[in-house]
Amino acid sequence: MENKKRFEFLQKDYIQGFSEYCGFEVLRVEDGFFESILKIQPGHLQQDGFVHAGVIAAMADHTAGYAAFTIVPQDHRILTIEFKINYFKPALGESIICRSRVISRGKTIIVSESEIFSRNKNQEKLVSKATVTLMSVLLDS
Amino acid sequence: MENKKRFEFLQKDYIQGFSEYCGFEVLRVEDGFFESILKIQPGHLQQDGFVHAGVIAAMADHTAGYAAFTIVPQDHRILTIEFKINYFKPALGESIICRSRVISRGKTIIVSESEIFSRNKNQEKLVSKATVTLMSVLLDS
Amino acid sequence: MENKKRFEFLQKDYIQGFSEYCGFEVLRVEDGFFESILKIQPGHLQQDGFVHAGVIAAMADHTAGYAAFTIVPQDHRILTIEFKINYFKPALGESIICRSRVISRGKTIIVSESEIFSRNKNQEKLVSKATVTLMSVLLDS
Amino acid sequence: MENKKRFEFLQKDYIQGFSEYCGFEVLRVEDGFFESILKIQPGHLQQDGFVHAGVIAAMADHTAGYAAFTIVPQDHRILTIEFKINYFKPALGESIICRSRVISRGKTIIVSESEIFSRNKNQEKLVSKATVTLMSVLLDS
Repeated sequence: MENKKRFEFLQKDYIQGFSEYCGFEVLRVEDGFFESILKIQPGHLQQDGFVHAGVIAAMADHTAGYAAFTIVPQDHRILTIEFKINYFKPALGESIICRSRVISRGKTIIVSESEIFSRNKNQEKLVSKATVTLMSVLLDS
Repeated sequence: MENKKRFEFLQKDYIQGFSEYCGFEVLRVEDGFFESILKIQPGHLQQDGFVHAGVIAAMADHTAGYAAFTIVPQDHRILTIEFKINYFKPALGESIICRSRVISRGKTIIVSESEIFSRNKNQEKLVSKATVTLMSVLLDS
Repeated sequence: MENKKRFEFLQKDYIQGFSEYCGFEVLRVEDGFFESILKIQPGHLQQDGFVHAGVIAAMADHTAGYAAFTIVPQDHRILTIEFKINYFKPALGESIICRSRVISRGKTIIVSESEIFSRNKNQEKLVSKATVTLMSVLLDS
Repeated sequence: MENKKRFEFLQKDYIQGFSEYCGFEVLRVEDGFFESILKIQPGHLQQDGFVHAGVIAAMADHTAGYAAFTIVPQDHRILTIEFKINYFKPALGESIICRSRVISRGKTIIVSESEIFSRNKNQEKLVSKATVTLMSVLLDS
């Protein structure tokens, strides 16, 4: 019950500032898991007509951070210490999906992985994968 | 002379799609070097009021790629294979500056580094640093 | 049949120079997969008595490279372009196991992931994970 | 004076376990800086006769950690959270040199960079560069 409330809060909190500006939307929230979607618009592309690596990186980082938010107390915030992202193939199509999972639950250091898929006519292709190192910090500390 | 033309082309080419959408602007182009600026707007922030890690990552990647463009033939395009970025302190202030330098000039694989500074009242602070692995590919190949 | 021969060759080829010096051994070879083990000796430790991050990194890189070897033609060699590794918890115990899987099969660029487990009395713990970007190059080219 | 003692302690402490096993030696210690050397032996090579990426990674990590040790109190230890390393060209020659510098001095999180050079007949070539994220932890905590 409490989790449900927390997850609903995170679902709204996810969309603000840059994530809202980019157009990210939430699909699913679970313990240690967050899934988001972006409908591709011309403003998301780069010089060759593919989705910009920066859009994918922003989505990978933001979604990874919210996966971490699902496992920390409510008075903690999550900071990105660093991340690394690989691009496997150009992203094209109607939308991109990001699925982020916590893979290490440290007290201070949390590590999430984000897999990004391009979706076209219900077919998904893995286009990118990121490892995100996050820090859980007591708010106002 | 030829370089001058090429650099002018890259300066314009830099701003399109997602980079234009975000508001990145070019400050300086040299052989193996590219410098850009972003005036911070509310749409660039995250939940704590700092510049979103994704904005910084997008700028670090995009500027690193254009640093690589300055050293390859005109019929080549640049693809991001992967990048890694560290965040040293929260980015706040009027604008952020990104300076990208090519640090390894391979035939196929080019590596650039991006340093991102927050600027406030002409004071700069290093807030982030990225290493970007790029691939130079013959266009239409 | 041919695969079997190739895998046997790789199993032997894996152990030479630094990998032999460290004491890495092969457990299993499959298409796009390589598994190795290291029996922990005092020479593998660091100042706090845990397995040195460098031993784990070397094993993660080497095993990831041989996972890539299983999917390229015999006249190709594999070079490490870069890798990134996260350490989740200190590695202790009798041995460490490394399981590497190819996660992106590009023509030139191959990406493998390595998961490293510490093993003690048949209990395994995930202690580290790496993403390795490799390049497939025609021998003598 | 106190620094001098501390630096002498770190110079000795650097060589033990895996770093001694590999043959790393210390050249220079300064505030936020550590420099090491390795005389290349057959046991350091990989299948193509170059210095193994794992040797370079181990040296980059270990030296980066000791650069961090120079700036923390004596009752703190340094843990590697993660690192990322790029390989620019094959390492060959008589020895390799690693120069590590702290580039971000956080209270908990310290970031060092390691540059690795191959040296032959007093000529140096930059062959690799790493970014290492470290954590400063109170001993016995």
